[in-house]
Amino acid sequence: MNIFIVYAHPEPRSLNGSLKDVAVNFLRSSGHEVIVSDLYAMSWKTAADRNDFTRHNSDQRLFYMYASAQAYHHGTQSNDIEKEQEKLLWADVVIFQFPFWWFGMPAILKGWFDRVFACGFAYGVGQYDKKNYGNRYGEGTFKGKKGLLSVTIGGRKHQYDQRGINGPIDDLLFPIHHGMLWYAGMSVLPPFIVYQADKTSEKQFENYKLQYQERLSRLRAAQPIPFRYQNNGDYNHRQQLKRKFVNGESGFSLHVEE
Amino acid sequence: MNIFIVYAHPEPRSLNGSLKDVAVNFLRSSGHEVIVSDLYAMSWKTAADRNDFTRHNSDQRLFYMYASAQAYHHGTQSNDIEKEQEKLLWADVVIFQFPFWWFGMPAILKGWFDRVFACGFAYGVGQYDKKNYGNRYGEGTFKGKKGLLSVTIGGRKHQYDQRGINGPIDDLLFPIHHGMLWYAGMSVLPPFIVYQADKTSEKQFENYKLQYQERLSRLRAAQPIPFRYQNNGDYNHRQQLKRKFVNGESGFSLHVEE
Repeated sequence: MNIFIVYAHPEPRSLNGSLKDVAVNFLRSSGHEVIVSDLYAMSWKTAADRNDFTRHNSDQRLFYMYASAQAYHHGTQSNDIEKEQEKLLWADVVIFQFPFWWFGMPAILKGWFDRVFACGFAYGVGQYDKKNYGNRYGEGTFKGKKGLLSVTIGGRKHQYDQRGINGPIDDLLFPIHHGMLWYAGMSVLPPFIVYQADKTSEKQFENYKLQYQERLSRLRAAQPIPFRYQNNGDYNHRQQLKRKFVNGESGFSLHVEE
Repeated sequence: MNIFIVYAHPEPRSLNGSLKDVAVNFLRSSGHEVIVSDLYAMSWKTAADRNDFTRHNSDQRLFYMYASAQAYHHGTQSNDIEKEQEKLLWADVVIFQFPFWWFGMPAILKGWFDRVFACGFAYGVGQYDKKNYGNRYGEGTFKGKKGLLSVTIGGRKHQYDQRGINGPIDDLLFPIHHGMLWYAGMSVLPPFIVYQADKTSEKQFENYKLQYQERLSRLRAAQPIPFRYQNNGDYNHRQQLKRKFVNGESGFSLHVEE
């Protein structure tokens, strides 16, 4: 398969850097094609602005979404954005390797999504009418591709469980899993997570390496998180989950099939 | 009061820019002191890396958290970080004005948190023992200060309600409200949100302006979201919510008092 790793850590000798190397080596030796976007090494332009569009009139008020759609359709996006979009189109699987900072991805990776997930490419795709409110949430440009988050977390696992003070990790990752990847049509594999990352010993690392390789060996067969499709009848015409699926539950988990 | 507005939008003529101006003008005319960090205008350095520390040995492996703590305690953080920290210490209220992009804040603002919320300043504060696992979640450097998110959202309100396909807005904002602001000790006021931001007419804007001014006039009296304190007895020694508070509920809402 074609595997695209988006890697966001400022230190090559970090646990994140090592996990990225584990993936590259293991996947290549398993016969896959692998490419990596090392966002820090690329000095990735992080902040979305009018320079993302080569022909935007500097006197004109910037509506980022509309400017993004226009540039995408007219081939006037900045070159760094286009290259990342080409990698996404090439990939069968996309792996995101990053540390969990302030309960989310590092800014440099958020800036990759803000800029690369352009209008007409990752959102604003398909017809918008009563039956089909855009090709999103299970449909869209990335349909058929798989996404996997590989995340390192400083805190302890039990602080991220159902009663943990930080909130459940599945809910903390929901805006990425559901709001970015599934939104754009990608199936989402269960995340690979290392807790207490800063305290990782050499011996523990060898253990994580084996666990990660095991996960990587099952990329093809692994079952994705069963998020609900927007346009398959589970939601009403206002994109609200039909009442029959709400069994006293609340929160993000409603949007995962039982 | 001293009010600090952190503003993140690339276009001054945007709805976000206008709401920022509404706040500045209204609060000043109400007798408050107001300062603004306009992150785009400041060309805010977004990506956290070793250049955030003026004396980090470039041969040494970068552990960002430890380097952050050391630089904070030794006065060797980069100047832009120090300045923002001084503004935070000066402020009684901090307002964050930003558009909701991919279910979170723009990268440039995430990069403000990643860099300014340093170790020893916004986290890693206080004693860590069985009774007091750090001064966090309601305690810490920002105790006594208030935070307010003012957010513009492209989508429709009903897509963000309890059954809305995007997930409930309170849950989507939880990683910011609870994981960043409350974590560092700030009380969190209910957010001011404008939906379908891209479709705002002049007439609607006048309405939003009045609504926002009304909210701003009550900064002192407004009741914050009653997030639970970590060290007040609601959590066990592993920072998990005690079972007696879990009444069949799940998800982020567990961490808000009834």
